[in-house]
Amino acid sequence: MHAYRSHTCAALRAEHVGQEVRLSGWVHRVRDHGGVLFVDLRDHHGITQVIADPDSPAFKGIEDVRAEWVIRIDGTVKARAEDLKNPKLDTGDIEVYARDMEVLGAVEGELPLPVFGDVEYPEETRLRYRFLDLRREKLHNNIILRSKVISHLRSSMTDQSFLEYQTPILTASSPEGARDFLVPSRLHPGKVYALPQAPQQFKQLIMVAGFDRYFQIAPCFRDEDPRADRSPGEFYQLDIEMSFVTQEDVFQAIEPVMRGVFETFGGGRPVTGTFPRIPYAESLLKYGSDKPDLRNPIEMQVVSEHFAGSGFKIFAQMLETEGNEVRAIPAPTGGSRKFCDRMNSWAQKEGLPGMGYIFWREEGGETVAAGPLAKNIGPERSEAIRVQLGLGLGDAAFFLAGKPSSFLDVAGRARNVIGKELKLLDEDRFELAWIVDFPMFEYDEEAGRLDFSHNPFSMPQGGMEALEGDDPLSVLGYQYDIVCNGVELSSGAIRNHKPEIMYKAFEITGQSREFVDENFGGMISAFKFGAPPHGGIAPGVDRIVMLLAGAENLRDVIMFPMNQKAEDLMMGAPAAPTNEQLRELGLRVIPRD
Amino acid sequence: MHAYRSHTCAALRAEHVGQEVRLSGWVHRVRDHGGVLFVDLRDHHGITQVIADPDSPAFKGIEDVRAEWVIRIDGTVKARAEDLKNPKLDTGDIEVYARDMEVLGAVEGELPLPVFGDVEYPEETRLRYRFLDLRREKLHNNIILRSKVISHLRSSMTDQSFLEYQTPILTASSPEGARDFLVPSRLHPGKVYALPQAPQQFKQLIMVAGFDRYFQIAPCFRDEDPRADRSPGEFYQLDIEMSFVTQEDVFQAIEPVMRGVFETFGGGRPVTGTFPRIPYAESLLKYGSDKPDLRNPIEMQVVSEHFAGSGFKIFAQMLETEGNEVRAIPAPTGGSRKFCDRMNSWAQKEGLPGMGYIFWREEGGETVAAGPLAKNIGPERSEAIRVQLGLGLGDAAFFLAGKPSSFLDVAGRARNVIGKELKLLDEDRFELAWIVDFPMFEYDEEAGRLDFSHNPFSMPQGGMEALEGDDPLSVLGYQYDIVCNGVELSSGAIRNHKPEIMYKAFEITGQSREFVDENFGGMISAFKFGAPPHGGIAPGVDRIVMLLAGAENLRDVIMFPMNQKAEDLMMGAPAAPTNEQLRELGLRVIPRD
Repeated sequence: MHAYRSHTCAALRAEHVGQEVRLSGWVHRVRDHGGVLFVDLRDHHGITQVIADPDSPAFKGIEDVRAEWVIRIDGTVKARAEDLKNPKLDTGDIEVYARDMEVLGAVEGELPLPVFGDVEYPEETRLRYRFLDLRREKLHNNIILRSKVISHLRSSMTDQSFLEYQTPILTASSPEGARDFLVPSRLHPGKVYALPQAPQQFKQLIMVAGFDRYFQIAPCFRDEDPRADRSPGEFYQLDIEMSFVTQEDVFQAIEPVMRGVFETFGGGRPVTGTFPRIPYAESLLKYGSDKPDLRNPIEMQVVSEHFAGSGFKIFAQMLETEGNEVRAIPAPTGGSRKFCDRMNSWAQKEGLPGMGYIFWREEGGETVAAGPLAKNIGPERSEAIRVQLGLGLGDAAFFLAGKPSSFLDVAGRARNVIGKELKLLDEDRFELAWIVDFPMFEYDEEAGRLDFSHNPFSMPQGGMEALEGDDPLSVLGYQYDIVCNGVELSSGAIRNHKPEIMYKAFEITGQSREFVDENFGGMISAFKFGAPPHGGIAPGVDRIVMLLAGAENLRDVIMFPMNQKAEDLMMGAPAAPTNEQLRELGLRVIPRD
Repeated sequence: MHAYRSHTCAALRAEHVGQEVRLSGWVHRVRDHGGVLFVDLRDHHGITQVIADPDSPAFKGIEDVRAEWVIRIDGTVKARAEDLKNPKLDTGDIEVYARDMEVLGAVEGELPLPVFGDVEYPEETRLRYRFLDLRREKLHNNIILRSKVISHLRSSMTDQSFLEYQTPILTASSPEGARDFLVPSRLHPGKVYALPQAPQQFKQLIMVAGFDRYFQIAPCFRDEDPRADRSPGEFYQLDIEMSFVTQEDVFQAIEPVMRGVFETFGGGRPVTGTFPRIPYAESLLKYGSDKPDLRNPIEMQVVSEHFAGSGFKIFAQMLETEGNEVRAIPAPTGGSRKFCDRMNSWAQKEGLPGMGYIFWREEGGETVAAGPLAKNIGPERSEAIRVQLGLGLGDAAFFLAGKPSSFLDVAGRARNVIGKELKLLDEDRFELAWIVDFPMFEYDEEAGRLDFSHNPFSMPQGGMEALEGDDPLSVLGYQYDIVCNGVELSSGAIRNHKPEIMYKAFEITGQSREFVDENFGGMISAFKFGAPPHGGIAPGVDRIVMLLAGAENLRDVIMFPMNQKAEDLMMGAPAAPTNEQLRELGLRVIPRD
């Protein structure tokens, strides 16, 4: 027989009754019921109940074991009595009567963290003893899910003839984006490598090198200040790049991969069939956000005409200024003063003067618009609004007025809150969409000039001709986001692979050719030696797993995460270097004040 | 039609003749044959011949293109005349008559490196313009091979229920092994992370955390001085760990994975069926190395008895000292004075006084031992040697005497040289083997005490009992290597997971419990909370790909390698940090003398 096990702790069934077996695992729980010992023996695969009575030669040994000891058990599979069967366990029809046992790994002293039971424990303890926390069922399953998701993503990509290529981790500092982690060079004292914030330049160079369809489950590194929704230090993305493609090709390649992973691991929750493509401007208008949660059915609308010249003077006056608008957030089933007042207070907490509303209630068998706004604008205008928004008895609508950019963000959040409070969301689904047609440029008020809205390296729609037109603010980019349930999974773009168009785009933001050459010389120089049109995307792996696991914290989907202070409590990182290490690197630590 | 291509440059066949197609790719070569232009258009997939005559609207455009421009071609597929077919090309039966063309990416100025043709270019140019070098067929294919090998390794592992888990890249400095790369922490000035030399501690902690079968294509980082057979900086290994296993289980799991990758990508070259398990001591004796090239049939033997008390006084006297031996390197077909003298000179160049030999030639229809040694020891002893070594007419044998440890290394190299010179090796095969039973301890003459021979963390065979015995030097470890064609692919071990046995092993080398706790506290402390027996291995991915590609240089199997000075010439790394970066990290560069 094998030294440690004939079966895993999830394998035994009624059909094994009578067999002599060997199991190894952790003592999940041990109980003494009237002199008979019951051990729940746990391994990676599952749990099997082991029993020993005083007649068993293993009894004395098992009497000594405690939770989380690792033991080997030899014994006989027995059927459980009908009323003792445990339908929650795969092995619940049987138990193993122990005849021999061996301690493979004892526990010395007290466990700092129990594994059995789901008692809450301080984050610090959980991270310091991560190897214990990881034995807990929920976290254990999350990590397995993560592994399977990544493996599935890889298969989906290779099935589509993408090949995975590793790009360097010790590389050059990049002038854009977030802060780099630096790695001092010992062979070149005073110089540093940087860890890649993303393999962006490398994947584009891979295209220039003539490889067609690249992907990589790529580790990325950003030295950011702690943020709740980011894992400090490192994270993984499904990095993708393709050449000789249009934006539509990228969508056709990626959509099945994303749909597939949510369908495969979403536990049967519905997933968007064909991802809608929502222009950026439309997304802001309808959802007040470029990462809308489409599980929420609320769509905002412009209702300026109903307020222009109306008896609601504040809005009417605002509308006299060009660029100002009134937008409505419909709130189906929200038609009570109590709800509307609560939302109004919420808006005030968010820093707005308030949020006007109308709600529709029954009066004498008729549907009547109620609330101060309705009074001010009168029944006809109120009715026109109701008809436009498609609302009816028992519904409400909220209104925001001014320059849209000044209230968009709050409007988006109001939409979320209203949707949630009124339970309009079917939470158990995955709603995915592409956000497209991002503007290339925006006016930077502070600097008094145009700047790139998002990514300077995207190809402008219309190419050079568009950039040479009169209105750079109207130029859209071949840039896109993919969002799921209100979470941005990734940005992507068709890249600007033509040096002349690149120089021109930077010129519009007031930057010279020299600036471009100095800061992005590597890419620009490569593009001058025969670059193909190319584009890609890079969905965040950690976020996908979080959505699938229903985890609220990135640390719950990462095997060994750092804490929010970017410390690894288990391994003790970061730590002071030795003087010898510093000397070799030609560095000195500046004493702190 | 698609914006860039209806087919790849490898797709068109005779069956497509007459179709209108669109291709995009690089101008591999352009020729003018009597006013007709021939373009070899190349993409990731292959090459298609495009032609244009002055009647074609695309003629003018194609006249302007030069090597490595990226262009789009619209045209008609035509059959080539029988005598113009090119059987070397998949698309050699057809050509595309161009009707329209578009420049997608031009080349500005001179190419620093031609892609067409395999002209040798200086390494520095090749690395600086890696994106051009990668377009060359050989390198392009190596990188694709690497990707497919890694993908295959992953499938082999998941097929066996291993799951891949990512371990941290920003972690703690490790006191053992090579030099760490350090990453200064900005949030904790004066402290540093380290990049992992290997995920050794993490994979063991994954086992302690209750996961069963781990693997990872793991990036590893070592700040080593440049070495020919190492890529500076980073490399990848197929990192593996399993729990509740014996050494035999590891072999059973890994052997099919390794055999599979060589069978799948070895181009039909034979691969060892069942890997022999060769004890370390036997390997040293037979092959003079613990990483023998088993394509070489030569096996050394101890022949002391034939020299003891013989007329060859030097050897006879040596054998009077205990521990000294005479070993023979058989050299089938090496039976000529010329060859033997050449090998003798080789040995002298290697620092030996020489290498005695006997060779067997015909004299008067009989096989006679020749050479000075044979004369000294006489025909009977010579014949006994011949019989023991299984040699005959036309063969030779070389002899080394003394303390085996003093000549083993040269003997091993002599075996290689003899095998190569005599063409005894069938180069076109993959011979794999396990080397097992490494000793745990060796005597460190300088320190005057015992030290670990290899890995302090391997489980000693016989456990605590063996360590408590009289002769620590006789204790073997559950430690093993896998070798292929003389290249060590990996070391592995069943780990010592019991703190008491770990303390005892260190005690034998003169180290206290406190030393162990201080230096390996993370692991030891985890082992005290219920550790399973576990073991693993970590074959080097780069080396496997090198063997398969027949590459002589690691840089030929890595997409973007650094040069031997650990510089990335393409991206310009390492580079001087900004003062702002240093200030944020609380560091100062020490001015160089």
